[in-house]
Parts: sequence; C-alpha cells; structure tokens
Amino acid sequence: MNDFFQTDIISIRDFNKEKLETVFSATDKIIQMNPNERRELARGKTLGYLFFEPSTRTRLSFQAAMASLGGTSLGIADASSSSTKKGESLADTVHIMSLYSDVLVLRHPLDGSSRFAAEISSKPLINGGSGTEEHPTQAIQDLFTIIREKKKIDGLKIGVAGDLKYGRTVYSLLYALSNYNVDVHLISPESLKIRSDSTYDIKKRLKYKESSSLEEHIDEFDVLYVTRIQKERFPDEEEYLKVKGSYTIGLDLVKKMKDDAIILHPLPRVDEISTDVDETKQAKYFKQAQYGKDTRAALLALILNENSF
Amino acid sequence: MNDFFQTDIISIRDFNKEKLETVFSATDKIIQMNPNERRELARGKTLGYLFFEPSTRTRLSFQAAMASLGGTSLGIADASSSSTKKGESLADTVHIMSLYSDVLVLRHPLDGSSRFAAEISSKPLINGGSGTEEHPTQAIQDLFTIIREKKKIDGLKIGVAGDLKYGRTVYSLLYALSNYNVDVHLISPESLKIRSDSTYDIKKRLKYKESSSLEEHIDEFDVLYVTRIQKERFPDEEEYLKVKGSYTIGLDLVKKMKDDAIILHPLPRVDEISTDVDETKQAKYFKQAQYGKDTRAALLALILNENSF
Amino acid sequence: MNDFFQTDIISIRDFNKEKLETVFSATDKIIQMNPNERRELARGKTLGYLFFEPSTRTRLSFQAAMASLGGTSLGIADASSSSTKKGESLADTVHIMSLYSDVLVLRHPLDGSSRFAAEISSKPLINGGSGTEEHPTQAIQDLFTIIREKKKIDGLKIGVAGDLKYGRTVYSLLYALSNYNVDVHLISPESLKIRSDSTYDIKKRLKYKESSSLEEHIDEFDVLYVTRIQKERFPDEEEYLKVKGSYTIGLDLVKKMKDDAIILHPLPRVDEISTDVDETKQAKYFKQAQYGKDTRAALLALILNENSF
Repeated sequence: MNDFFQTDIISIRDFNKEKLETVFSATDKIIQMNPNERRELARGKTLGYLFFEPSTRTRLSFQAAMASLGGTSLGIADASSSSTKKGESLADTVHIMSLYSDVLVLRHPLDGSSRFAAEISSKPLINGGSGTEEHPTQAIQDLFTIIREKKKIDGLKIGVAGDLKYGRTVYSLLYALSNYNVDVHLISPESLKIRSDSTYDIKKRLKYKESSSLEEHIDEFDVLYVTRIQKERFPDEEEYLKVKGSYTIGLDLVKKMKDDAIILHPLPRVDEISTDVDETKQAKYFKQAQYGKDTRAALLALILNENSF
Repeated sequence: MNDFFQTDIISIRDFNKEKLETVFSATDKIIQMNPNERRELARGKTLGYLFFEPSTRTRLSFQAAMASLGGTSLGIADASSSSTKKGESLADTVHIMSLYSDVLVLRHPLDGSSRFAAEISSKPLINGGSGTEEHPTQAIQDLFTIIREKKKIDGLKIGVAGDLKYGRTVYSLLYALSNYNVDVHLISPESLKIRSDSTYDIKKRLKYKESSSLEEHIDEFDVLYVTRIQKERFPDEEEYLKVKGSYTIGLDLVKKMKDDAIILHPLPRVDEISTDVDETKQAKYFKQAQYGKDTRAALLALILNENSF
Repeated sequence: MNDFFQTDIISIRDFNKEKLETVFSATDKIIQMNPNERRELARGKTLGYLFFEPSTRTRLSFQAAMASLGGTSLGIADASSSSTKKGESLADTVHIMSLYSDVLVLRHPLDGSSRFAAEISSKPLINGGSGTEEHPTQAIQDLFTIIREKKKIDGLKIGVAGDLKYGRTVYSLLYALSNYNVDVHLISPESLKIRSDSTYDIKKRLKYKESSSLEEHIDEFDVLYVTRIQKERFPDEEEYLKVKGSYTIGLDLVKKMKDDAIILHPLPRVDEISTDVDETKQAKYFKQAQYGKDTRAALLALILNENSF
C-alpha cells in the first residue's frame, strides 16, 4: 500500500525526502506509462476543484492530469459565480464538494484554509495554493524539474531571485529544498526580502545567503529560480522602475551563466524574463510547467490507488 | 419501458405518488449499483446545462451525477460569459443547446421559463430551479431524504420553518408532500408567511397549520425543514435581527426535539442552523445534499434509458 | 495519411476546394458513424480552449464535438478568471495550454492572433474566431450547410444581407465561396457595406454585386445569408431604426422567396429574422448550428488521426 493513499496534501513541510522521492518516481512512471493503462488510474473518479483566487495553470494542469488518468473534473473556477455569493461558509462549500467528488483541490487566499478544509472534507484534499506560504504541488513540480533536468540536487548552488516577500511559491520551494544539501542564495531588492517572521521554520532547516545583486554570483548558479516582481508591491513607481531593471533576466545575463545552468519560473511571468531567453538551453520554465501536469497526475494517482502502479 | 424515458421534468406538480416512487426506487438502484455498470447508463451522452442564476450544488450535483453515469457535461455556468450578452433570446439559446446535448438542465429566474424552454428543446429538459415556485429536483431529493431516513412518510409531523414567502424550495416541497398523508406546520415571521396568492393550488391538496413560534411544537416534529432567512427581505434591520434570533436552530433547540427527528435544509445556509448542530444525529442536511447527486443520477438514468436498469 | 493530421486551422483562405471537400466528406462520415466507433477518434485526447471573447455556440459546439469523439475539453471560457489578469502574455498562455492539451482552439479579438498563437503552440491550433475577418470553422459549417441542403453549390445565387462591415463570418464566408462558381449579392445599408480595404483579396477571387435593397432580388436567391445588425454600429438611433426595418426577414419576405431557397444565419440573432420564420421550410439556421458540431468534430478527428476513419 502506498503512503499517499487517501491522504491530504496540505503543506510541503509534511514531505520528507522519502515522500518526495515516492512522488518523483511515481511521476516517472506516469510519464512512461502506456496512455491506455494510465487512464485506468482514475477511471470513474471525479476531481472537485474550488478556486477562490484566479488561476490558469494550477487548475488546468490538475484538470489535464485528471483527464490523463481517465477521470473527470468539476467545480468552481471562479468563486463569484457560486453559492459563496449567497454567504455560504468555506466549510459548507468544502463539505458539499466532498460529497460530489473523490478528491478535492482548493485554492484560497487565507493561510490555513487547506488544513481547515481537509478536516471538513470526507475526501482527500490537495492544497492548490493557500495564503502567502503554501503551494505544495508547485514545490513538488519545481523540485522534480531541478532533479530531472540537473540529474541530481545535492551539492547544487541555487539562486532564488525577485519578490521573495510575497508569493507562496518561494516559501514552499525553500521548505522543499531543506530536505537536500543545497547552497541557496536569496536575491531581492531590500524591500522585497523574505519575511523574517515567516522564516523561523525555514532557518532551522535550511541555511541561505541573502544579497541584492543578481549579477554577483550569476556565473556560479546551477539553478536560477525567478519570481514575478509586481508593481503594486512598491510604495512608488520610481522605486519599482529602478528595481525592475536589475531583476530582469535578459540574454546578456544568461551568457554569464554556466552552460548547464537552468532557469526556472513558476509563471505567469510579466517582464522578469525577456522572451528571447525562451530559446536558450538554460530556459526550463516551460518544461517546468509541463512537469506540473505530470507531478500532479502522480499525486492524484497515488491518492486514488491503494497499490502501486 | 419507463415512464420518464425522453420526458421533461418541469414541475413537481406533475409527479404523483407512483412517479415519485419510481424515482426513489431508481435512486436506490443507482446507489447500490456496481460503478462500472452504472457508468454504462449515460455512456457517450452529454448533459447541457444553462444557469441564468448562480448555483453551486444544483449544477455540481448534476455534473457529478452525469459523471457517475459515464456521461459528460457542458454548458453555461454563468450567463454573463455567453451570447445572451449579445441579446440572444432564451428560446434560441435553449434551441442551440438542445442540438449539442442529449438532455438539458435549466435554471432561470422567471416562472414558466422551463415549461417554455421544454417546448423549444428537441431534447428532454429538466428544471433546475425556476422563478419563485418550482425546483422539482430539490423536492425529489428532499422527499427521498425524509423517506429513506425516517423509513416512512405517512403519519409524519413535519415543520417547515424560516422564510416561506420567497424561496422555491418550500413551494416545491409542499407540492411534493401533498401526495402523502402528513401533518404540516408552517412556521415563519408574520412578514415571511407563505404567499396566499401562490397557495391556491397547495391548499386544495394539502392541509397545513401556520404559526410564528418555532418552539411551540418543536418536541413533536419528526422532520424540521429549515430555510434561509435573508436580511435583504426585511424592511429594516431591527426587524431582521429580532426575527433572526428566533429562527436559529441551536443545540438548545435540538435538545427539545424528538430523538429520532431529522433536520433538513436545502443549503446554502447562513446563520439559520449553528454549526455545532452539524454533529448531532438529527442533522441530516449534508446527507440530503448527498442524496441530491443520487436522485439526479436516477432521473438522468431514467430519462436516457428506455428500459429499466 | 490525411492532409489535416497535426495541422493548424488558421484561415479559410488556406482552404482550396479539395481541402474543403475532404472536411465535408469527413463530416458525412462522422454523422453516419456508429457512436461507439466515433468515440474512439479522440479517446484519451484533450481539447484546450482559450476564449478571450464571449461565445456560446463556438465553444459549446467544440466541446460537444470533442465529447462525441470520446475526448475531453478544458480551458478558459472567460479570460477574466485566469492568469491573463495577472498580465500574462497571449504567447505564454498559449504555450502553457499547448502543454496541457492535444489540440487547441483560440478565440481572440485581434487579427492575426491565431497565426501568431499557432507559431507558439506545440500542438495544432484551431482559430475559433479572430479579429474582424477570420472565423474559418464558421465558414466551413456555412458551406457544408449550403452544399448538403441545396445538394450543390456551383451555379447558386447567394444573397448575403445585413451588417457586412463588421463581423468576421461574412468575410470568411466570401473567401470560402470564392472556391466555387457562385453568383453573390451583397445587400446592406450604405453605412454597413463591406470594407473596401479588406476586400482587396476577396475581389481578386470572387465577383459580387452590391445593393441596398433586400427585396430587389429576393425571388431569385437560392441562399439568403443574414447577419446581425447591431444598434451600436450606428451613429444615431433614428438611422438604426430606419435600417433595421428594411433588413428584417419576416413571413411576408419569405413568401416572395423561391420554394427551395434556404435562409442561413450564423447566430445569435436579435431581430433580423422574426421567430415565425423558424417554422418555414426555408429556415435552415438551426440545422446550420447543428452542422457546426458535426463539421468541428470532423476537423478535430482529421487533426488527431493520421489515417482516414
């Protein structure tokens, strides 16, 4: 019996190395599997999705993953067209959805929403992004990309650049990385540094260096993880424009990178990576998005099937 | 051949006891059926949904029901993102949808919309809630819950409490109950009493008593059906607050109820039932929601399959 | 191997007579096929839809077509609930969607959007309506309707009436018709005549006459193609009301038509065809809508299957 059968996926903090490896090797199997066989893994099963924040790739990759396993998806893509408008509580919406599906995925703006919802739900619940810190399936997809594209993870030098203050993908990634022996550099403008009140737990698990210069170690990174810098996070536009320029990855910067370095981004991007970088061999963010479907399919298959596949 | 094959479901008034029993026993079969067999009942069939009012559970329970029968759903969950914005008539939208699906479900704010639409549609059409009086699939689900949870219906004392003036679920429920020998008590604030102009037909079929005290007969009810009380229905807030308190079901009230009484609610609820009641054995509103999927699956299976299953 | 296997459908200008005939005969096969066999044609395949403009029938007919082939659909019905809100480029959205599906359909307000998107997409992309001129699947459906309902196309006298200035269906239809030997009359108010800057290409391929009187040749047409006249296109309401009356198809006008003439409309309609015309034998616009599902199913089947079916 597999450890994930009928379990919730709430936080990447609940994953140790062994659990991560289980998902990664399940993902490898999913990718290599004969499509007809794969479609038996969720045959007749239904994924219920509840998105209280807009999303493209998380929702669509879950739906695509479920379809690839032979299952069906239904739910609420946009909370404004549902009964939440009539004042229904999150608890009741989750409770109802768990009656109508075999596994749930929830995206919600509040920290703790997924853990709370999982207690209500009679079916396994997957956190599709909650609050400011948790996006476990994104972290799994990010790690899988690093490990498969770099063929290893221990010993890698990893730069994480951009807006580190807001954005749950960074926090989840750091928690995930803390299972490995990696050399992490956090690079951000002073005002967008990782929140110290949120890093209590990270600091106990993972050593990292902080700087504000993207160029400083650019030639040393094996992995450069870039995140979106949002204009609305800055007190004034001048400050934003100053910062924006120095955190944009262009061809000139890529040329300074190691030949076998990889560039990741959780997407969507706005201006952080210029589109001409897409053609370089370092650019792996679309591959990363593709792995998002595969890793989610693996998770769903593990949750829905008692025995290994 | 079953009586529902290729027929419309427009009003609960069209259901006599025998027709109701047909749906109930089909629901029992659906629940007990082997999932693989069940998925043959709508194999390759498509449900087209048209929701001109927001809905969570009606739409999702229909989609989940269709998926459990092996079929597919497609449609418009939110009329604002469709051609109705371009001024298309309901008739044309329904006509088109009937070309693209095997059975339709329509929710619409206007009384009579479903009967009108059924005349246009070349495929069977199910009323998913129309105007102020008709919600036949909700009434079927409510009755099924009563009969299965109480093991009988004739002779039961049934309280219906809350906003009885607005809300089609109450009217549909009363029509459905009129097929049985039940003792109905309607309990509401004076300003939210059942509309006398709408009860002409109900009064001919069903005797009921009216009162404004929820507590008066609380220890006698076998079934307590609670509906949402909406703030915006009241002329002033003071009036609302006064009423709200006396129509909230809390643990204290549940303790006064019969041990084997059941509490139902069409959901969504706001404050009418406090959440600590959820854990009592009388609370059956989530079971009721679950039966919503099963009864709808039974209706769809009856409509789509000529022979019994 | 069929010519459409794994190809994009961008513009009706890319279709010659032979390619059109391939789609038409595939459509005939799709219609006559045993449903179980038909559901093998996209078994396990996923259609990704991206709609940046509202649509009912294009999106739903694609979804219904995909379901009839045994496939699944997923995507964005309304760009406002997706990551485009976060500033994601069309290119990135398309790129991602192509990772999560086997074939894409895109509707977008800009001319050229589909050709651009097809270059980005790693999977075949179908233009579901772009800008002011291109709606190739609509034109295919229109032509199929003419040919199957009139049993021929060469030699037909075809009137195209209404707003010819705006509306991509007219331009696409004219391009499609230019493959045949037809006598085309364009009928519109002076202010809504076909745009001369856009007809450079059409004029080289197709001869047509222009007039502003709908009645003039009404008794000669084999086909009357009517389009929506939108109030908001007119500088003042008086002008609109004057024009509206003379471009409305009523029973009186139908009586003047040939007995075996057919009336088409891309739908949605507002007032251009009065509903009592629906019952006449000339009215074929709902049949045309139905063929929309069949022709799209044929296109999808051709794109997804290497060998003929």
